[in-house]
Amino acid sequence: MTTNRTVRLAQRPTGLPAPDTWTIADEAAPVAAAGQVLVAVDYISLDPAMRGWINAGKSYIAPVEIGAVMRAGAVGTVIESHDPAFAPGDAVYGQFGVQRFAVAAANEMSRIDTMLAPAPTWLGVLGMPGMTAYFGLLDVGALKDGETVVVSAAAGAVGALVGQIAKLKGCRVVGIAGGPDKCRDVVDRLGFDACIDYKADGMFKALAAAVPNRIDVYFDNVGGPILEAALGLLARHARIVLCGAIAGYNDPSKVQGPRNYMNLLVARARMEGFVVFDFEDRYAAAQADIAGWIGTGKVTPREDIQDGIDRFPEVLTMLYSGANNGKLILRP
Amino acid sequence: MTTNRTVRLAQRPTGLPAPDTWTIADEAAPVAAAGQVLVAVDYISLDPAMRGWINAGKSYIAPVEIGAVMRAGAVGTVIESHDPAFAPGDAVYGQFGVQRFAVAAANEMSRIDTMLAPAPTWLGVLGMPGMTAYFGLLDVGALKDGETVVVSAAAGAVGALVGQIAKLKGCRVVGIAGGPDKCRDVVDRLGFDACIDYKADGMFKALAAAVPNRIDVYFDNVGGPILEAALGLLARHARIVLCGAIAGYNDPSKVQGPRNYMNLLVARARMEGFVVFDFEDRYAAAQADIAGWIGTGKVTPREDIQDGIDRFPEVLTMLYSGANNGKLILRP
Repeated sequence: MTTNRTVRLAQRPTGLPAPDTWTIADEAAPVAAAGQVLVAVDYISLDPAMRGWINAGKSYIAPVEIGAVMRAGAVGTVIESHDPAFAPGDAVYGQFGVQRFAVAAANEMSRIDTMLAPAPTWLGVLGMPGMTAYFGLLDVGALKDGETVVVSAAAGAVGALVGQIAKLKGCRVVGIAGGPDKCRDVVDRLGFDACIDYKADGMFKALAAAVPNRIDVYFDNVGGPILEAALGLLARHARIVLCGAIAGYNDPSKVQGPRNYMNLLVARARMEGFVVFDFEDRYAAAQADIAGWIGTGKVTPREDIQDGIDRFPEVLTMLYSGANNGKLILRP
Repeated sequence: MTTNRTVRLAQRPTGLPAPDTWTIADEAAPVAAAGQVLVAVDYISLDPAMRGWINAGKSYIAPVEIGAVMRAGAVGTVIESHDPAFAPGDAVYGQFGVQRFAVAAANEMSRIDTMLAPAPTWLGVLGMPGMTAYFGLLDVGALKDGETVVVSAAAGAVGALVGQIAKLKGCRVVGIAGGPDKCRDVVDRLGFDACIDYKADGMFKALAAAVPNRIDVYFDNVGGPILEAALGLLARHARIVLCGAIAGYNDPSKVQGPRNYMNLLVARARMEGFVVFDFEDRYAAAQADIAGWIGTGKVTPREDIQDGIDRFPEVLTMLYSGANNGKLILRP
């Protein structure tokens, strides 16, 4: 009998998740029933949204229950299938969770094409972060060619792709990231026009100087003072795309609303939230677009792959300190 | 030579405008040059936005300069015309300011049809408040028949019309107003389905109970805790129309952003600001619609007309204490 190793939610943290948030243990591997598939988990996606999933209370998705395996998107290999849709050896994507083996319903997982891109990329630019960037920028942000786009967490999985898509649409693209190394990387390797270090003094002035025609689309991954800076620099009819607010994830009681939100009125602008799952029926088309851009060198997939399921608690916190470089992935 | 009486901005207030904010004096009436018209001002519109106009610094409109006649929309009667477009006796609308006589450029004023509705109504449901309600609700709010609409400052000039238009579109309409008298009036005389007293305890619970299907369109005239309450009750794909934030007008440094703005993400909702002047080329069509609704009794125009130009400082503050009942107008 195969042994599984799992990361389960032990208790809900009040701030940053800590080692005692989790229980990591060996247990018997799950068994697939009819209509189900047993999968060996190869790569696990670590996402900022995970912090929200372990809060009690309704959000856009049900919370992870105490004692449950931590929710996570992942790619893996089919070991055993009790459904005609999958066969052993298939590469698949699903909500397999933070564990080495998972059982999933066949209708809740999908095959991935590892000829189009290697498996980890299906957690990055072809996975949730990719879909989030694509639909957030093009649909919610209603991007038009030649506009000025600003994106926060520019070195992160979503931000890096937002900027690269905006560049290939002929936009002026300014990133916001933490520290000179990240900023240099965003400009030199990702091809942004500029990148502002939010940890340096004079962030607002630097951002203002980088957007001489003001901001048409601000893709917000962080909330807080950076959102306020963007609100202060909106062009007329600007769109703010609300994708996340890492700054507030770990202590919702400290979330401050953007004090200058009435600039939305002055600029005749809008601020709009979205949930990427709503675009599920268009994922395949988006993935084909992005794979094409990878092929022509216009999009550079970048994954930061860390090893060892027991390191999950520590690796997860890299997201909140900004230590990761590219899409953060755990190989269990 | 005719004597004019004017209200000029003496100094910028830091909180509520006070008597010493203004200089009220007699002076020589202005003289119309070629292309200009001399107007006797009959009714002056008093608007919450006036507080913003007397702040220094750029907003959606230039600030009123110290020493200038206070800006105000008004209706009046042409006394003397140096432009073929107008003749003595014409009833006209323009930015005539808080004074008894005004000179205006012919191309910056318009004739009003007092057969369609009496002159004060052209400052109310056929004037700026009417246009604001109409385009804010139907265009920015993208109202659909049968939705649930919530509007704050429901007894005010804009709010009353928002609710009445929503009712005639078959919507469930809930107002928010201050005090039991206003609330009763909003339900009994304006025909809203319910009205919540924001001064009473348990405002959020009462609002939640009044919107069993949650809120599709929230028309925000006030900001502050009422905006937060609405953000907590959004239906999926809801629209928040930002029209004003009286709560913050008198002290911008105390403006707090809506702490739960990330509910926009959960609800896939948007918050959008607008400036009514952008819809100027469609005013005539909107006025025809609204006049039709007045004719069939679906819209009840209500004006609160106060007398005496010297009472301007005191009458203006009625807007911020909520003492007015209907569109506030000063007869100089």
